[in-house]
Parts: sequence; structure tokens; C-alpha cells
Amino acid sequence: MDVLEAILTRRSVRAFAPDPVPDELLRRVLEVGRASASGGNVQPWGFVAVRAPERLAGLRSLAPGIIGRPTAAIAICLDAARARALGGAGGERSAWLDIGVAVENILLAAHGLGLGACPIGSFHRQGVARFLGLPEGVEPVLLVALGYPRGKPAAAGRRPSGEVCFLERWGVPYG
Amino acid sequence: MDVLEAILTRRSVRAFAPDPVPDELLRRVLEVGRASASGGNVQPWGFVAVRAPERLAGLRSLAPGIIGRPTAAIAICLDAARARALGGAGGERSAWLDIGVAVENILLAAHGLGLGACPIGSFHRQGVARFLGLPEGVEPVLLVALGYPRGKPAAAGRRPSGEVCFLERWGVPYG
Repeated sequence: MDVLEAILTRRSVRAFAPDPVPDELLRRVLEVGRASASGGNVQPWGFVAVRAPERLAGLRSLAPGIIGRPTAAIAICLDAARARALGGAGGERSAWLDIGVAVENILLAAHGLGLGACPIGSFHRQGVARFLGLPEGVEPVLLVALGYPRGKPAAAGRRPSGEVCFLERWGVPYG
Repeated sequence: MDVLEAILTRRSVRAFAPDPVPDELLRRVLEVGRASASGGNVQPWGFVAVRAPERLAGLRSLAPGIIGRPTAAIAICLDAARARALGGAGGERSAWLDIGVAVENILLAAHGLGLGACPIGSFHRQGVARFLGLPEGVEPVLLVALGYPRGKPAAAGRRPSGEVCFLERWGVPYG
């Protein structure tokens, strides 16, 4: 799938077919997270894939934001300790940008591989951290539910171009 | 260009050919920023394209991080006022994630269109905000230098898979 098409057609998928995500695809999606660029190449992250049915059920019980029955999930974790140690002043802000970059790459890769995905921020943070065995200084930022999509979700609207795209100066529309 | 290939082959480009970025491509790159998904669809951002030579020179004078001679730039701005108003508690953290998503989409779109790009965090924040006429509550987060690439930059290394990609639990390698 073409990269521009992938960006413009990706949607949050919340309804999944029961077919499991093949191991090979799950690894490729994770690999794309790992390959992501980050400020100062700090790579302040870790990715935990969950796919065993009993583990997914456990994760769902801690994450009311997970709707439907994804057949896999990826916990995207911020290694805040690493961000602070290597990122210097502003390291944590920069790390949040980095996590956003990795999340988008993971979502786009899933879409490009024919999978549906949905990033989820509504979950019990301490519970998920314990469930995944995260070390001190590492926190779960988003869960990405994954699976083969069932149906095609509608696109969410966007702000008009004149409000957000400008030329040379803020307020001069461009788009 | 295939989306996975685009993600895995994108590099920060810091050496540019003198050829200007066509207006149509610059608009498409901005459009991809505007189309980006964000937490709660808050879209806490604005994008200012700069391409007039005297404006680029002015921007360069405020941004020691701009290396080489890009023929265009995009200032990616956080609308913190909007993030706080619409994003509720945690709105600003979420907005930094959102900005990361938009940045990655912009970088990937540029790459897919044959352009080179480099995100730059080293610049005079207040100076750039004034230069671009940003309103109160809006701040420049990153500048993206853009142009046709000259040469092919080397890839930066990444942490080994066993350090960042896990299955079911942190510490169980997967990749």
C-alpha cells in the first residue's frame, strides 16, 4: 500500500474478525516500532506484544477502552528513566513526541499489512504496568488493539484547512 | 512507495539540492499533517509552511539546528490552549503524542513524494513564534526542513530487538 494512501485511509478499527494475527505480521509491526526515529536517537521505549488468549482477557479486564475482541495487542511503553538519563532537559517532552512517532509507525504498518488497529488510552495504568511486569521507570502510554478488521469504520472529520494550514505566517491560509 | 518501505527507509536529510519544492507537493505534505489522527480528535496543532527565500533566511537565522539549505520548511506548532480547553486532564501530554503522530506523517509523506526532510528542535522558541506571528497559547515544537535530497544519508543504529520488543511480559524477547 502506498504510503500517502496508507496515511490518508487509516482508521481506528474497533471491530475485529476472530482470525488470529499471524506471528510473522505481529513481529513486523513490532519491528517497525523498534526502527522508529527519535530525538537524539534516544529510543525511549519498549513494546510488549500480547496475543495469548488468557493474557488478552487479562489485559481487557484492566482496559475499559478496549472495545470488541482484538486478537492481539501491543503495549507501547515510555522508558521515562532512559528519557531522563539520555535526553537531558526537556527529555521527557521529547520522549512523548517520540512515542507518538512510534505509535503512528505501528498503526500505519498494521494498516499496510491488512490489519486493523486502535490506540487506547483508557486503562488502569498501575494495573497494566504490573500485569506486563514493567520495571521501575517504565510506564504504559497506549495500548494498541490489533486484529483483522470487520467492516470499515467511518472517517472522523478534520478541522478545515484554513484553520490549521498556513503559508509564511500564522493566519495566512494555505491548502 | 510502499508504506512499510517508507517507514524503514526514511532518513533525516540535511543536504539539499537547490531545486525548489513544488507548491503542489508542499500542499500535499501539509494536508497529511492536517489529516492526522489525534486523541479525542482534538487536533491540537497548526502548520506554517515557509518557502519564500527571504523568509527561509530569516527562519535559518533563528534556528541553528537548520543545517544545509532547505528550500522549504514547515513549523509544526502545538496549540496548547486548544489542547487544554478540549483535552481535559492530561490534555497536554496527549497533545505531545498527537504532535509526534503529525510529524511522522509529514516526514513519511515527504519521503514518499521524493523529498528529503529533517525535524529540528534546536531553535529560538520565542523568536520563531514572533517570526511566524503565532497567537498566544500556540508554540512551535519542531521545524521540518524540506527539499530535494542531495546524497543518501546513512542509517542511525537502533537498540537490539531483545532490549525493546517483548512477548506477553517485559523482558521476554520477541523479534
